[in-house]
Amino acid sequence: MRGLSVGVDVGGTFAKLGLVTPKGDVVRSAQIPTDPRSSPADFVRRVAAALKGWEFDTMGLGLAGGVDAETGTLLFAPNLRRWVGFSFKREFERRLKVRAVADNDANVAVWGGYVAALHKKPRHVVGVTLGTGVGGGLILDGRLHRGATGGAGELGHMIVRAGGERCRCGKRGCLEAYAGTYGLQRIARRAMRNPPSPLTPKALADAARAGVPGARKVWDEAGGWLGVGLANAVLMFNPDAVLLLGGVARAGRLILDPVRRVFATQPFREPFASLTVAAPAERDWGCVGAALLSRERR
Amino acid sequence: MRGLSVGVDVGGTFAKLGLVTPKGDVVRSAQIPTDPRSSPADFVRRVAAALKGWEFDTMGLGLAGGVDAETGTLLFAPNLRRWVGFSFKREFERRLKVRAVADNDANVAVWGGYVAALHKKPRHVVGVTLGTGVGGGLILDGRLHRGATGGAGELGHMIVRAGGERCRCGKRGCLEAYAGTYGLQRIARRAMRNPPSPLTPKALADAARAGVPGARKVWDEAGGWLGVGLANAVLMFNPDAVLLLGGVARAGRLILDPVRRVFATQPFREPFASLTVAAPAERDWGCVGAALLSRERR
Repeated sequence: MRGLSVGVDVGGTFAKLGLVTPKGDVVRSAQIPTDPRSSPADFVRRVAAALKGWEFDTMGLGLAGGVDAETGTLLFAPNLRRWVGFSFKREFERRLKVRAVADNDANVAVWGGYVAALHKKPRHVVGVTLGTGVGGGLILDGRLHRGATGGAGELGHMIVRAGGERCRCGKRGCLEAYAGTYGLQRIARRAMRNPPSPLTPKALADAARAGVPGARKVWDEAGGWLGVGLANAVLMFNPDAVLLLGGVARAGRLILDPVRRVFATQPFREPFASLTVAAPAERDWGCVGAALLSRERR
Repeated sequence: MRGLSVGVDVGGTFAKLGLVTPKGDVVRSAQIPTDPRSSPADFVRRVAAALKGWEFDTMGLGLAGGVDAETGTLLFAPNLRRWVGFSFKREFERRLKVRAVADNDANVAVWGGYVAALHKKPRHVVGVTLGTGVGGGLILDGRLHRGATGGAGELGHMIVRAGGERCRCGKRGCLEAYAGTYGLQRIARRAMRNPPSPLTPKALADAARAGVPGARKVWDEAGGWLGVGLANAVLMFNPDAVLLLGGVARAGRLILDPVRRVFATQPFREPFASLTVAAPAERDWGCVGAALLSRERR
């Protein structure tokens, strides 16, 4: 069908495929194993096979790593090392005869939220993806800011609590160590006598809403540190909006209220006074954003 | 003389005036009391009187607060409250018949360093002004990023040590509480048995170079926290260069080495691998940058 785009969100284990309308609705989806030990050309072949019968004009790819958005080449990626240096854009364009783009996975997710949830209205946006890990993306002057090496928006490894919890990256006190899924789990195991099992963000949100002792405190702590990190970002970029995406953001007010409390106590009022804080209903923002980005003029 | 511009750096107590060449050299300077209780129109009159006999084509003003760069209007300013809402740009243009601009003081200082020291070569720059307070500015795609309310680049109030030292702004653990002059003084009073008197950044730098016990530790601590804050900024913005300006930056390697040590231990290598860290020789960057900014095309 005309006007549709494919978005591919490439995680370390699975790649999600979505057929996306210009408004950002997913009308068809699929999933294949990423298999990062296979060659990147093999991955492209497998994606192309999974897309057989799908009709679309353009496609976009979100990759967990640094990407040169001009050439669609993966520059660095801890979980996709074998694929570094490969131009996914060129290979998909050659094989599928459609325009293709590739970019960092958090960047495309933030782009998806910017277009489909914020309708491109704010000029400057700080976006954060709260999943297993914490990523982010910046919209400056209505465009994705990729930075000098394609790595901009790495909010998850901002230190919010010097000397604090150990992060998967090796540093202590990163935002991810508090506001990512595993950070949340760690807080829950300490703060709750009987944490829900399996210990998912959704189960923790349900527990807090049901008044399970300690559950709300878990969200207050995670949201408080998220607020510190976002306040740092707001002071730096002075955005019109902050956009929260990902599984942890689905907790809604449980995570937003403590963020807003931190914002409300900032001595520098102006950057916070007219700031929009948005946590749109969850979608596969990676797929949606990758698809929508492929429709943009360069 | 043709090709010269005036820059005015408006502090809470004094306003510095400089006649600046297109390369950023100050060929003449003056100083007048700011007197923030006087009317802004009176301030403009006093500046105009001080500029009598100076020949210049354009002029720029750096103000300690949020400024609407389009209209040159002061939006908020804790130390210049009576002047909020006044368009300095318009009033100077009316009175002096030259093109005028007004912007945040840290923004113009960073612009000065960007043009005169970095020769506009990097595309994205994080600049930090290390004076009594700590301010900053962002260069995005070769232009100043001012943000939604003219307040972008407020690096000094990023929290680098949650629960840490009290900052003048009321929060705890802001970068300014460690890397501004008064933060440095506080560290020195604790770490040194006999801190130099008067306790200036220069005296502390001299003491460290002379091997005075404890002095180098003061710089290591201040520089270490500065490194944490700048690393956070680099992870978010992924700039080509970091620019350190202001009196504290004059300590050179004493403050740069601990910053570089923090950068060297970052698990995410790419944003730091090709990053330029520059601390150019001190000038009146506020005057220089305000003057140079007034020469830019809109």
